Amino acid sequence: MDFHNYLEQQKHLLDRALDNLLPPEEAFPPQLHRAMRYCLFAGGKRIRPILALAAAEAVGGNPEHIMQEAAALELIHTFTLIHDDLPAMDNDDYRRGVPATHRVFGEAMAILAGDALLTEAFKILSLGSHKGVHTPDHIVKIIELVAEASGSRGIVGGQVVDLDSEGKIIETKHLEYIHRHKTGSLITASVLLGGILGGGTEKEMECLKTFGTSIGLAFQITDDILDVTGSSEELGKNTGSDHSKGKATYPRIVGIDQAEKKKRELYGEAINALTSFDDRADHLREIGLYIIERHS
Amino acid sequence: MDFHNYLEQQKHLLDRALDNLLPPEEAFPPQLHRAMRYCLFAGGKRIRPILALAAAEAVGGNPEHIMQEAAALELIHTFTLIHDDLPAMDNDDYRRGVPATHRVFGEAMAILAGDALLTEAFKILSLGSHKGVHTPDHIVKIIELVAEASGSRGIVGGQVVDLDSEGKIIETKHLEYIHRHKTGSLITASVLLGGILGGGTEKEMECLKTFGTSIGLAFQITDDILDVTGSSEELGKNTGSDHSKGKATYPRIVGIDQAEKKKRELYGEAINALTSFDDRADHLREIGLYIIERHS
Repeated sequence: MDFHNYLEQQKHLLDRALDNLLPPEEAFPPQLHRAMRYCLFAGGKRIRPILALAAAEAVGGNPEHIMQEAAALELIHTFTLIHDDLPAMDNDDYRRGVPATHRVFGEAMAILAGDALLTEAFKILSLGSHKGVHTPDHIVKIIELVAEASGSRGIVGGQVVDLDSEGKIIETKHLEYIHRHKTGSLITASVLLGGILGGGTEKEMECLKTFGTSIGLAFQITDDILDVTGSSEELGKNTGSDHSKGKATYPRIVGIDQAEKKKRELYGEAINALTSFDDRADHLREIGLYIIERHS
Repeated sequence: MDFHNYLEQQKHLLDRALDNLLPPEEAFPPQLHRAMRYCLFAGGKRIRPILALAAAEAVGGNPEHIMQEAAALELIHTFTLIHDDLPAMDNDDYRRGVPATHRVFGEAMAILAGDALLTEAFKILSLGSHKGVHTPDHIVKIIELVAEASGSRGIVGGQVVDLDSEGKIIETKHLEYIHRHKTGSLITASVLLGGILGGGTEKEMECLKTFGTSIGLAFQITDDILDVTGSSEELGKNTGSDHSKGKATYPRIVGIDQAEKKKRELYGEAINALTSFDDRADHLREIGLYIIERHS
């Protein structure tokens, strides 16, 4: 199966899992459940859950056994998108090619839908899809991992510093903090979640951590570059939006060429971290390349 | 020790636990950690965590062993207060006797501080304060319990229906849905969390569930009554605020006398549920009485 088909198939499996896991649209209160599903199913590449599935595969685990836990990562990601787009935050009108959640359902509902998606993610993680396969110890460990990655010293911390930096001239070190937290932390956690549930050894987990950290930063630098060079149609959100808001981005601070160079260096570090893995890590390697070469 | 001293002592222990558990104010990014602590330490009776401690005691457990998990419940409660007060939601300016979080730190930071408190709660639950005492199975169970109580079919669902009902004439049944979800679900979950970690039997857990469900609804009816009869100074928020917003409340729908009657009936049901418990449930019984007789 070529890589494109692999991505499509994983996305299909994840979307089916998400549809089964979330309360149906008509579940009371329906307006909330519609809002929760709206941004989630509007689009999205499902990169984080697919990274988790591929990491499980890389350490010899069965990706099918972690489908639910991987899907929970997409709920966390979608919660951050909905809240980040709010008028009080980035005030973005479009997301995943459609009007942002608050534009369709109002601000209150967008805040609450985000809250509910975040909470639902922890519920799904706690349920443990394959109790015979995953020990309660492993389940507790991934909940800690995801909570750490999402909270004040993870995604939320990154968003705070990002908002605070708007319109300011900041150093690369500072920008790296934003990217590593706002985007990198959940990407790294996704890779590690797959590794833990797939039964990775301590040595393998260290390699996966390096892979996740490098590819997480490369992911956001790629996003920064696409904000300058991509098309709105492909991205599903307004291009140049970060730039016009005075957001700190790699191209803004170091220029496009240096941003491209940094991205490729990080990709190299990520791939190097997988040297000791056999061909079961090929999907993970391919996702790494896809992350830096994608057009949306 | 009289009951007043008991409450004071538990609150003191919980506040110390919360202070130790949360990142310090100066932890990067400091403005976020200040915002997270601001509303949390502005006041609050710590009823939910104290219910958890008393429930653990009632089933023969050691309340000291569940201090961290109980404290996590207060983070969830504070998250809901911060988000509910936002301009897009209830637009309340005062909370716990001080200006609301968004009034001091701005809307974006209030949304993010709430998000971070919710996430931090799950992190604390996953850490498991006494790994030798609480099994990973129990930890997974309480995470599921708290997530279920907080999400789209718990607190968040209740808030959605509450907002949707503003200014409308609704039936008692509908109002009970709001109260049972917005307030009751976390109170019930608090009692059950204490019961699970305290090692309660299946029979005891059933009794605790009835106690929690009844006292949870009684709690909110008491709040409704205080909104009409209490003083702003005692409550730490504007009185009559629910009424003037056209919020659905018990006194509004059935009148003060019927609301008082309903409250006492529920208290009776709660106390009855504890008949088979010995005097180790006395704190739980006293909290039940306190809940319906408090002035703030």
